[in-house]
Amino acid sequence: MAYDAVKMKDWQISEAAEENMPTPDEWREKLNLQKDEIIPYGRLCRLDFMKIIDRLKAKKDGKYIEVTAITPTPLGEGKSTTVMGILEGMGKRGLNVGGCIRQPSGGPTMNIKGTAAGGGNALLIPMTEFSMGLTGDINDIMNAHNLAMVALTARMQHERNYDDEQLARLTGMRRLDIDPTRVEMGWIIDFCAQSLRNIVIGLGGRMDGYTMQSKFGIAVSSELMAMLSIVRDLADMRERMDNITVAFDKKGKPITTGDLQVGGAMTAWMRNTINPTLMCTAEYQPCMVHAGPFANIAVGQSSIIADRIGLKMFDYHITESGFAADIGFEKFWNVKCRYSGLKPHVSVLTTTIRALKMHGGGPKVVAGIPLPDAYNKEDLGLLEKGLARAALYPRTGPTAAMAPWN
Amino acid sequence: MAYDAVKMKDWQISEAAEENMPTPDEWREKLNLQKDEIIPYGRLCRLDFMKIIDRLKAKKDGKYIEVTAITPTPLGEGKSTTVMGILEGMGKRGLNVGGCIRQPSGGPTMNIKGTAAGGGNALLIPMTEFSMGLTGDINDIMNAHNLAMVALTARMQHERNYDDEQLARLTGMRRLDIDPTRVEMGWIIDFCAQSLRNIVIGLGGRMDGYTMQSKFGIAVSSELMAMLSIVRDLADMRERMDNITVAFDKKGKPITTGDLQVGGAMTAWMRNTINPTLMCTAEYQPCMVHAGPFANIAVGQSSIIADRIGLKMFDYHITESGFAADIGFEKFWNVKCRYSGLKPHVSVLTTTIRALKMHGGGPKVVAGIPLPDAYNKEDLGLLEKGLARAALYPRTGPTAAMAPWN
Amino acid sequence: MAYDAVKMKDWQISEAAEENMPTPDEWREKLNLQKDEIIPYGRLCRLDFMKIIDRLKAKKDGKYIEVTAITPTPLGEGKSTTVMGILEGMGKRGLNVGGCIRQPSGGPTMNIKGTAAGGGNALLIPMTEFSMGLTGDINDIMNAHNLAMVALTARMQHERNYDDEQLARLTGMRRLDIDPTRVEMGWIIDFCAQSLRNIVIGLGGRMDGYTMQSKFGIAVSSELMAMLSIVRDLADMRERMDNITVAFDKKGKPITTGDLQVGGAMTAWMRNTINPTLMCTAEYQPCMVHAGPFANIAVGQSSIIADRIGLKMFDYHITESGFAADIGFEKFWNVKCRYSGLKPHVSVLTTTIRALKMHGGGPKVVAGIPLPDAYNKEDLGLLEKGLARAALYPRTGPTAAMAPWN
Amino acid sequence: MAYDAVKMKDWQISEAAEENMPTPDEWREKLNLQKDEIIPYGRLCRLDFMKIIDRLKAKKDGKYIEVTAITPTPLGEGKSTTVMGILEGMGKRGLNVGGCIRQPSGGPTMNIKGTAAGGGNALLIPMTEFSMGLTGDINDIMNAHNLAMVALTARMQHERNYDDEQLARLTGMRRLDIDPTRVEMGWIIDFCAQSLRNIVIGLGGRMDGYTMQSKFGIAVSSELMAMLSIVRDLADMRERMDNITVAFDKKGKPITTGDLQVGGAMTAWMRNTINPTLMCTAEYQPCMVHAGPFANIAVGQSSIIADRIGLKMFDYHITESGFAADIGFEKFWNVKCRYSGLKPHVSVLTTTIRALKMHGGGPKVVAGIPLPDAYNKEDLGLLEKGLARAALYPRTGPTAAMAPWN
Repeated sequence: MAYDAVKMKDWQISEAAEENMPTPDEWREKLNLQKDEIIPYGRLCRLDFMKIIDRLKAKKDGKYIEVTAITPTPLGEGKSTTVMGILEGMGKRGLNVGGCIRQPSGGPTMNIKGTAAGGGNALLIPMTEFSMGLTGDINDIMNAHNLAMVALTARMQHERNYDDEQLARLTGMRRLDIDPTRVEMGWIIDFCAQSLRNIVIGLGGRMDGYTMQSKFGIAVSSELMAMLSIVRDLADMRERMDNITVAFDKKGKPITTGDLQVGGAMTAWMRNTINPTLMCTAEYQPCMVHAGPFANIAVGQSSIIADRIGLKMFDYHITESGFAADIGFEKFWNVKCRYSGLKPHVSVLTTTIRALKMHGGGPKVVAGIPLPDAYNKEDLGLLEKGLARAALYPRTGPTAAMAPWN
Repeated sequence: MAYDAVKMKDWQISEAAEENMPTPDEWREKLNLQKDEIIPYGRLCRLDFMKIIDRLKAKKDGKYIEVTAITPTPLGEGKSTTVMGILEGMGKRGLNVGGCIRQPSGGPTMNIKGTAAGGGNALLIPMTEFSMGLTGDINDIMNAHNLAMVALTARMQHERNYDDEQLARLTGMRRLDIDPTRVEMGWIIDFCAQSLRNIVIGLGGRMDGYTMQSKFGIAVSSELMAMLSIVRDLADMRERMDNITVAFDKKGKPITTGDLQVGGAMTAWMRNTINPTLMCTAEYQPCMVHAGPFANIAVGQSSIIADRIGLKMFDYHITESGFAADIGFEKFWNVKCRYSGLKPHVSVLTTTIRALKMHGGGPKVVAGIPLPDAYNKEDLGLLEKGLARAALYPRTGPTAAMAPWN
Repeated sequence: MAYDAVKMKDWQISEAAEENMPTPDEWREKLNLQKDEIIPYGRLCRLDFMKIIDRLKAKKDGKYIEVTAITPTPLGEGKSTTVMGILEGMGKRGLNVGGCIRQPSGGPTMNIKGTAAGGGNALLIPMTEFSMGLTGDINDIMNAHNLAMVALTARMQHERNYDDEQLARLTGMRRLDIDPTRVEMGWIIDFCAQSLRNIVIGLGGRMDGYTMQSKFGIAVSSELMAMLSIVRDLADMRERMDNITVAFDKKGKPITTGDLQVGGAMTAWMRNTINPTLMCTAEYQPCMVHAGPFANIAVGQSSIIADRIGLKMFDYHITESGFAADIGFEKFWNVKCRYSGLKPHVSVLTTTIRALKMHGGGPKVVAGIPLPDAYNKEDLGLLEKGLARAALYPRTGPTAAMAPWN
Repeated sequence: MAYDAVKMKDWQISEAAEENMPTPDEWREKLNLQKDEIIPYGRLCRLDFMKIIDRLKAKKDGKYIEVTAITPTPLGEGKSTTVMGILEGMGKRGLNVGGCIRQPSGGPTMNIKGTAAGGGNALLIPMTEFSMGLTGDINDIMNAHNLAMVALTARMQHERNYDDEQLARLTGMRRLDIDPTRVEMGWIIDFCAQSLRNIVIGLGGRMDGYTMQSKFGIAVSSELMAMLSIVRDLADMRERMDNITVAFDKKGKPITTGDLQVGGAMTAWMRNTINPTLMCTAEYQPCMVHAGPFANIAVGQSSIIADRIGLKMFDYHITESGFAADIGFEKFWNVKCRYSGLKPHVSVLTTTIRALKMHGGGPKVVAGIPLPDAYNKEDLGLLEKGLARAALYPRTGPTAAMAPWN
């Protein structure tokens, strides 16, 4: 169906474009994949990472393009829109291009921010699945993560209720002597549940858990999500799954998921997350969605796994660094690339006249309030001052606007 | 692959049988479905309820067979195994048979009970997906349910922090005046998290929620799960989604999800759950898995939706009533069938010599401890006493062993 | 000053009568006490129990008169007023009479009930001191009791924070292994503090106590108050002070104040409470006030100590049993007298026509609502039925109205 | 009894000296007081402030001597010992001298610090009463303070449970709309109860208070204790008692004890605290004890009231500033004296060679560990450096060693 992307809202564009979205079989053909390398999930697919990387391991990588943005105004400057636009532009020129972006959290999606990757015709589709659950990775993380907390609190309850002899007889376990004042891990839920940030748990009686202070964080802040963005493969994930510090014992020694003997079950819940989800732009260029760690408390990048197979499948693979050049771009170079060993060929710095003016000293920009006049009329002086700071804001590491390397 | 079901463990049987599991295309052909009536999810599929029921609405229903069990010993008497066995037996005779059972909760699965539907060759496959997540229904229920709690607690926080004028200006809402001592709804998580049963939430500061006592229950105990088992269709679900009582206001009037204006978003999270998941026995007879409410606090049945399409797709559709004849069987007849308007043709009462002896006055059976001698040798007297009580234990409603109706 | 007790309010009667209250020196002379046997406390005095009992131990006891009441209507039938009236009546006849009643709790005093012992001219004075603090016994109990809780929670904190070796080195103590789910003792405060009934304590960090559920009760419900009413002397108190069960350890063994090594410090806080406070009626007959345990959860009697010296100092010593014949009277005979070995000569059963009618089947009497008509007109039938139940309500033990024994 | 103060422990000195302590009658004569200006409390007395100040208001004040100390080493340098020594020294010379110091808190007394004012023969007696309860002021503060908290939490409970109409009908009160996240006042208890520092209160049901975070502080940190040290008289106390901010309402307006209508009852509990307690040195010079606010969170001084009557009764009245010159001395001049309008004639700066050496740069002094060698041998250089800092440490306000003013 033809549609008018200028007059339509994003969700209308998405719905119109979804009508001709490639089927799994069409994707398989388009991406030169083997039959079992693509796994359908409703209207989406997962790509079987292990099979693809194994088959293509000898193939030369494509060009690695990274998109970041100037430190944004509160309105956002359009990093994902740039990614979608580049995908569509290069795709229109007949180039074999693909990319990967991060999965959004249910927290912002259900708040004011809402969700969409891109906008207008430079849009990732289908929007509904993207915004609500995708193929289940965040739910898997939630179950795996909270299982560790169940194991931890059950262990503390048993160690409190039983003496050494009873503990050994009833659970076959030795005492871990967890210090309840040094439990580092909390529970997760994928909403902005302010009421669960600081809680007291384990009230009731002897069989109602261990009484202590605890907390819920947003699911994507889980160490498991950070892990998903940097693991090399399933074996790496399994190994790391035993090494999460959940608390300290009374002598100050870390207690890990391995000590709780829960790493295997956690990996079982996470088994499908290793395979990136395949989506596409409104013009049907392939774009994976994989991992969604925040940049403030984690690496802020989509996964190394997705980039690894993207660089095999596409001549040009685009990835994105959140939140912006002052944090995500820095972590892309100094954390993600050091883990992956991959070297980008180009970094794109998304910016706007508005952001440059603000960095040049323009008046404060506030979401939900009309833009100050300075942003609606030409002011080359302000712009010039701001340009000098476009590359200055990212305070550490390599910085540039459209700076080529290699 | 041929395999020896006698010598192998359940998970080995499942793995062996999985190798030849029908693909979505094969299921489509086998079940005479249209292309878009079957939706692949990894190795599983969902059946598009609305499309199937709409296409087949004029078709005459098949025979409706219900399986329950005698009030069980702590070891369980094998209700699901009986369902799988009947499916395989009737399938071997060339009959067009299918069924539906309930989805298990992550709580028991991760505890001693573990999970499997059936055992030996009378097994539902693939076991891994069955035990861990299926196609995501419980996760969807968790997100939809907890979203209501986020809306409730956020509302309480806002109403506490703002006066009427501020509240209207900032949120556009009138005051609901929720009584914090009469909040009925809790949060859910799909584990047996004893530590979260009784909690205090909303500690911290002004923006950290509303301070009150709260609770987490197991996910399958959610009213949404009860609802999923009895809704007629998506419109019915949407309507019910506004009518969940979450609390009472200070005058004693119920506050609903509709008052919180969250029913639409909850339904959005639940949108896929309306479509039953398709699995099969180790001999590849089709068996849906849909809804998993507990029988003690809810109806204890798989869904009306699955039975409705099962009766259209199969000449014989088998369903199961948990936990046993004294509770699930009763609720099948007096709740589920009254809602659905469907009339069973046969009820099967699963029993064992062991259970009959116990009901006849035999010594206590305890899980994890060797069976008392009385159960290992012939005792016809005990058996006779027990037989008289096979049909007596279900204290209300119609009761019988293999009793035909209609 | 002469005053008109009919027209004046109780507090006005008290203030008028206070002007001629005996001084400590006058009391000494009046009661034939030695110089250091009477200890002034502002307008009140304490009697030095140990000195008095030691000096008079060979003297024959006076007559022991006990006052109780019919199970009361919600309006109260006037037990204390009867005590004050008997004291004044016998005093007017020139008899050497004195008595002892219980100290009121700050909880009821600060609520609707307010406080006064007696009313009209049959009043205990000075009212202010009687209502607010007396000579400090309840405060002493509060400090002694809460000190045990501080010791308990500090011990739990240290045992949690340190391993065996650190614990021994830092505190010189072995591990008590207190089970936090079996802490029996709570804190006390002498108000009806509903907000402190169920609390969670020990939040914050490592040095902020032990995280657990706890509770505050009203001060007079303390075991120390119960103890004060039945101890024989200071040595008995010291011994009992080590035997209070505060919790159980993980093997189910009681943990006592003695285990916490806090009995000595508690006794130090309680050192003055052993000496009864001396007050008087509005007509200056002596009346001690000593101990104030509730009858529902404790013995409901003033102290054995006060009765012991009262019987030495007075020819007639009057004591009172709260709440009424169905509970306090019973406990007087079967608990207090068995501990003391003292034998009453007379019991007085206070009653009213109103209470007798109510027990005879009259309509419900509610505080704050006008009396039903049945109570305002003669109804001998109702009265007769009620009379039969005056002595029936106290279901166990000896019962009577003005029944003489010996 | 003669005793050897060099060989005896403080408590033995106290016990020996107590044998000849003046009786109330002897104090009356010695201090030229009227009969009802001195009120006995066991072995102690209170001085009736209102009567004394009223009778002597025209009399010229004596000399006002203030004692403070160099910023101390952790071992303390002996401020109170200096006060007792000066009292005894001037007394021996036949001068009419008296003084006033602060009441100690039960928290430090029951911890490592223990309690005593002075040491050796320069000792305040009787020690037992001084350490444990005195004449009840801290208990009175505890009851008055916690009564405000009971009123506050009861009000919050009622406002939560009832709508405007019910509230007016049941309590006769308008809604205060207290913001539970801005309750400033906590409860008090006179021990170092770490477990009660951070608590959650109001758990249970509808009648079990208002659910919120709360806290217990040590009793002497109460605003009532700060108030006691600076009030001019009972009328001033009553007025201030209505002006304590307990919380803020939802518009940010302070809620006071006056709003809770509890100021009168609080003052009633505090009625006796207005009268300073009279004690004496081991050589029987009079020394009052009145008020005990901490210097870190309050004024750190004994009361203006005691100084006012001390200056009338004695030719030389000595008072003390805690903790030391860098905080209490500063507050004495800039807070206490500005409130009282009194002008000191001399300030005494207590110091030790040890403290001077430490301030001169000597090694760290730690309680419970042997003194470093530098403190056991002569080191005039270190001493000289320290001397320059004796008057420097108090960073603001007038500072001096034995500096005369006026």
